[in-house]
This record gives sequence, structure tokens and C-alpha cells, in this order.
Amino acid sequence: MSKFFSEKYKDLIPYVPGEQPKDMKYVKLNTNESPFEPSKKAQEYALSAAKQLELYPDPDCTLLREKMAALYGIDKDEIVIVNGSDEILNFAFMAYCDNKTPAAFADITYGFYPVFAKINNVPYVEIPLNENFEIDIDDYIGINKTIFIANPNAPTGIALSLDKIEKIIASNPNNIVVVDEAYVDFGGESAVKLINKYDNLLVTQTFSKSRSMAGARLGMGFANKKIIQDMNTIRYSTNPYNINRMTMAAGIGTIEDNNYTINNCKTIIENREYTIQELAKLGFETLPSKANFVFTKNNKFSGEYLYKKLKENGVLVRYFNKERLNQYLRITIGSKEEMDILINKLIKIMEEAK
Amino acid sequence: MSKFFSEKYKDLIPYVPGEQPKDMKYVKLNTNESPFEPSKKAQEYALSAAKQLELYPDPDCTLLREKMAALYGIDKDEIVIVNGSDEILNFAFMAYCDNKTPAAFADITYGFYPVFAKINNVPYVEIPLNENFEIDIDDYIGINKTIFIANPNAPTGIALSLDKIEKIIASNPNNIVVVDEAYVDFGGESAVKLINKYDNLLVTQTFSKSRSMAGARLGMGFANKKIIQDMNTIRYSTNPYNINRMTMAAGIGTIEDNNYTINNCKTIIENREYTIQELAKLGFETLPSKANFVFTKNNKFSGEYLYKKLKENGVLVRYFNKERLNQYLRITIGSKEEMDILINKLIKIMEEAK
Repeated sequence: MSKFFSEKYKDLIPYVPGEQPKDMKYVKLNTNESPFEPSKKAQEYALSAAKQLELYPDPDCTLLREKMAALYGIDKDEIVIVNGSDEILNFAFMAYCDNKTPAAFADITYGFYPVFAKINNVPYVEIPLNENFEIDIDDYIGINKTIFIANPNAPTGIALSLDKIEKIIASNPNNIVVVDEAYVDFGGESAVKLINKYDNLLVTQTFSKSRSMAGARLGMGFANKKIIQDMNTIRYSTNPYNINRMTMAAGIGTIEDNNYTINNCKTIIENREYTIQELAKLGFETLPSKANFVFTKNNKFSGEYLYKKLKENGVLVRYFNKERLNQYLRITIGSKEEMDILINKLIKIMEEAK
Repeated sequence: MSKFFSEKYKDLIPYVPGEQPKDMKYVKLNTNESPFEPSKKAQEYALSAAKQLELYPDPDCTLLREKMAALYGIDKDEIVIVNGSDEILNFAFMAYCDNKTPAAFADITYGFYPVFAKINNVPYVEIPLNENFEIDIDDYIGINKTIFIANPNAPTGIALSLDKIEKIIASNPNNIVVVDEAYVDFGGESAVKLINKYDNLLVTQTFSKSRSMAGARLGMGFANKKIIQDMNTIRYSTNPYNINRMTMAAGIGTIEDNNYTINNCKTIIENREYTIQELAKLGFETLPSKANFVFTKNNKFSGEYLYKKLKENGVLVRYFNKERLNQYLRITIGSKEEMDILINKLIKIMEEAK
């Protein structure tokens, strides 16, 4: 840190993304990426956009919003496009939290929320999950705070039903509720259908997981038009040209080719259920997941031990060195072949430990 | 605006980018884009990256930084890569301005600086340019503020010599000086060579202008390692995966193909001098420009009149409805053919007005 860095950030500890080691080729099950390539149409449109990079992109992302509006059955002015959903999560902390309005989120959830709170110098409370790693909605009823809920939650994979989400939204009419649906396409229930029923709801989603576009950086927010205006006020005051031409074009191709996404999600769900069964045969207990990952533990081995042994064996998974989580592994659901490699490596590691 | 929007932003007026009308095909000389397509190597690398979008990009942009370090003759840890240089300008306002340390910049310069100050709730002073639209460096000596200087300046195109920039940096050892070199490749002198002489210097540049990549969103900061660490602290606390795979790949291709950029810059400089001469024949007075645009006026016509007439004639230029600027037009330097269309349309407009 330089001596010039503002004191307001003196307690800031940045987010640490999942490791991306370059020392060898791994079976990469650590950052919840898709095992499928992006839609061919996305690739084709991106190529076409790459020929016109000398011109600024459309800062309004009009065509992409029109395509998405048609797919989701909403108005294009109920959508804002962002450079990955991290960007809009930060915008929501900027716009809707301050000294008078703290943020609130689970103690076990997306690890970036406390960082967003700190970079924006806003107070926050972490609400403990219950003993089953679930959100108890009574903890969120009428709490007069800006609420952030990852649904399905990470790293647990557990989803909250839409009627429970709605109770939280309805009971906090004077505060924004942000529902972070990064993983919703793998079996969760989306709150997008509620954006015109509640003026305090902001839903965020991403092209990174179900749409195989983590490398393109494309996220979006859905809300009533006034909230979308707020998000655009922040966007046009920080980085109006936040979406490059190639990503925008790839997003349009992906939306036009939506059946490809739907089929990929079906495969991931099948592979997830298969993986949970195979893990159970090895003595693993897995939380019920509606995401493209599972959170699983084996009482005979620590999470750290299995993480390290798997890495030695060429399989990357995620391990969290944090109370309540350190017995677990978070394992991305990849292709059937990748999951079979995982299971076989686990069998080998467990036999070697005998 | 929603009723939930934080009061801290109540005076915020977002930046307004140059218009991008879609009603017809214009000769587009209003947003300082390059008339040349991106490097073929950039296009080829972007295509290859588009096939792997399912994987997150490298958040450290290691390969691109290595290529740039070699080109600029500096260390890769003296470089940070951003989603267009607006992103790092905002980061600098975040990191180096607060209630104790106001920002300072010219009254006539990049219109985004006051917006960055407001979104970050930091005080700022605007220092008037002199009667020739130049920075008087005496106004910047030892002022105990975080200084932002666009060099060459916009919308004037006027450059400050490196020895003058150095005097400002040397006289403010307790404050960061940000030198915004978006337009430096068209004849200005870069301050990058000073980053190891002064620990308070941050230089920002972009691939948008000289490198024909406005549509890809790629900017960078050059500074000593501690300042780069500060920038990464902010980046990893807001949006670590800020650069997508295709843009990163296109950037690498463009750096490898640097002679293409150098030749394009030579052509733009030739076209600029040609345009200034042709405008002079029509009675225009043009400020001395080191950028890929000129700032020019004709005492017989208001800037607004010529802007509107040119738009009717299919030529887009930029007009600023602001005191001291409203007699002027800012005209991007495009291809020779585009500049001839501009001149011919101006001749027609001026004859019709007789």
C-alpha cells in the first residue's frame, strides 16, 4: 500500500477469487465454471464484433436488453447490463446502503458481500444460518436493512423457496432486497416474476454459470424501472461503456440460442444428482443443492486434507478455511467424465489413507 | 430515481457520453474513435478466446502485462489493466481523494472528473485554464491536492511539455498526480518514464484511441509498485474479473502488432495537420492539437449552428453548450476521405448561409 492511500480504506481486505494455477492442467472443479463451450452463435457473433472494435459499444446495450426482455417476458427498461454481476452487487451497496441504512446478509454466503460493504464504508450485520446451513426467514422479517440474499446460496447450494423470498421482500417495504441469483438456472425459483409486484426488489443474474460465459463478464439486474434508473445513475457516474462489443454480441447469440443453455442445465442437474449418489457411497454427506456445485463433507477426513490430496492428484476443488466450513469441500459439477475422475481420485485417496 | 436511493448521491449528475444516433449512417467524428479497424492479430486472438468463454479470465492479466512491460521497458508489476481508463480514473478518486485531500483539475478538461468527484463524495476545485486554453503550471505548484491532468487535454487537444508535468509532480510530493494520457500517442510526451523517479505519479492510458479498441474496453495504469498495489486493492474489492478473455487476447495481439499502431498514429497526425490547414482556408481558428481531434471555431458561425448543420449533412461532431466552449467544435480526425467530406460539407453549409 502506498502512503497516499486514503485512510477510509485502512481496514479493507480485498476479495480472494478461487485459485487459477498455471503449473499443470487440472480437472477444474473449483470456480463453478461450466464444462460446456459457449453457444456457437455466441462465438460467431463475438467474432463479427471483433472486426469493429474501433467503435465504442452501445452504452445502453439496447439490442441485448430487447432480446432478454423478450425471453424473460419483461420490459427492456426493467433490465440493466453489467460487467459481471459483481459490478451490480457493488452498485447496490453504493446506492442502497449508508450510515443510516446498513446492509444485512448471511454469515455464510458469497464472500464478496462484506468486502463490498467495507469498500463502500457502510455498516453491515451478518445473520447466522441455522444448524442445517439454511436461512431462517424470521431473522429477515422487517429488519430495516438493505438485504442481500444469494439464492441458491453459496457455498452451500441450498435454495430458499420463492414464497419465503417473497415474505422477506413484503416485510421490508422501506428497504431494498437484493436477490443474487447467480446459480438459479440449476433448479432454483427466480424472483424475476416479482419485480412488478414489489418496488423494493432487485434481482441479479449472470451469464457466467449456466450460459458458459464466465470469461466474457456479463451480468444483469432485473427490477422495476426506478431501481434500474438508480443503477444506471451509478453506471453512468463510474463507467458508462462497461460492456465491450464482443461480450454484448456473445450475450445476444447466447440468448438467441437459449435451448442450448436449457439442455446444458439439465445435464448439470443430472450430473449433480449422480455425483451426490456416488459421494454418498464413499461416506460423504452433501447438502441439498440447487446449484452447479455441491457442498460435501466426509467425517473421516478434514476438508483441507481432501482438498490438498485432490490437488496433488490433478483435481481442483474449493476449500474454505473458516469455522463451520472447514470440514467441507465445494465441488463444481462438471461433465460426467470429470465427475468420474473426481470420484475415482477420492476412492484412491481414501484407500491410500487406510 | 427510486425512493431508496442513498441521500449521499442526491446532487449527482451522471456523465453524458457523446451521442451514438442510430437513425442514419453518419461520418462519425464526435467520439474520437479511430478510423482504422483493430489489428488483424487482435481480431485473430479475440476469436480464439471466444471459444473458451466458459472459463474465467486471468484476473491478474499476467500475459498482457508481460507484453506491455516489454514494450514500455518497465516491470509488469508497474502496470494495472482496467475496463477502459474511466475505471482507473474512478479508482484514483476513490483511493487518493477524501475530505482531507480534495481533487484538483482544470475547469475545461475531461467532463467526467467532476462526476467522479461527486460519486465519491470528495471535494474538488476547478482551476481555470488561461486565455489561450492552456494550463498555467504555477496554479498547480505545491497545492496539496490530488491532481488530475489530461495531457493532451480534452476538448482542446493542447499538450503540456513533460518538463512542466514534472514540475507539478515534483512540487506536490505529498499528493498523487494523475496524468491522463488517453491521447498521448498522437504527438504528446508520455510521463511513463517518470514512474520510478516519483512515487506520487500515476499515468493512465487507453487502447481506445491509437489502438483502435474503443469497443473492447481496455485501459491501463502505470506507476510504481505501491500505487499499482493500491489500484489492485480497489480492483479486488469491486470487480476482480474486470477484463474479459476476448479483450485481454485482443490487447495482446495489438501489442504484438505495435507497428500497425505506430503507422496509424502517423496517418492521423498527417490528417490532423491537413485538416487544420483546410479549416484555416475557411476562416477557422484551431487550437494547436497533439490529439486525434481538433478544437476549432469560426467567428462567423456559432458552434451550435455548425454542429446542427453538419449533423443534417450526415457528419457528427461534438459541440459543448458551456461558456468559453460554445463557439467551438471538437472534431475527431478520421481518414483522409472523412476529413474531405467534413471540409466539403462545411463549404456547402457556409455558402448556403450567405
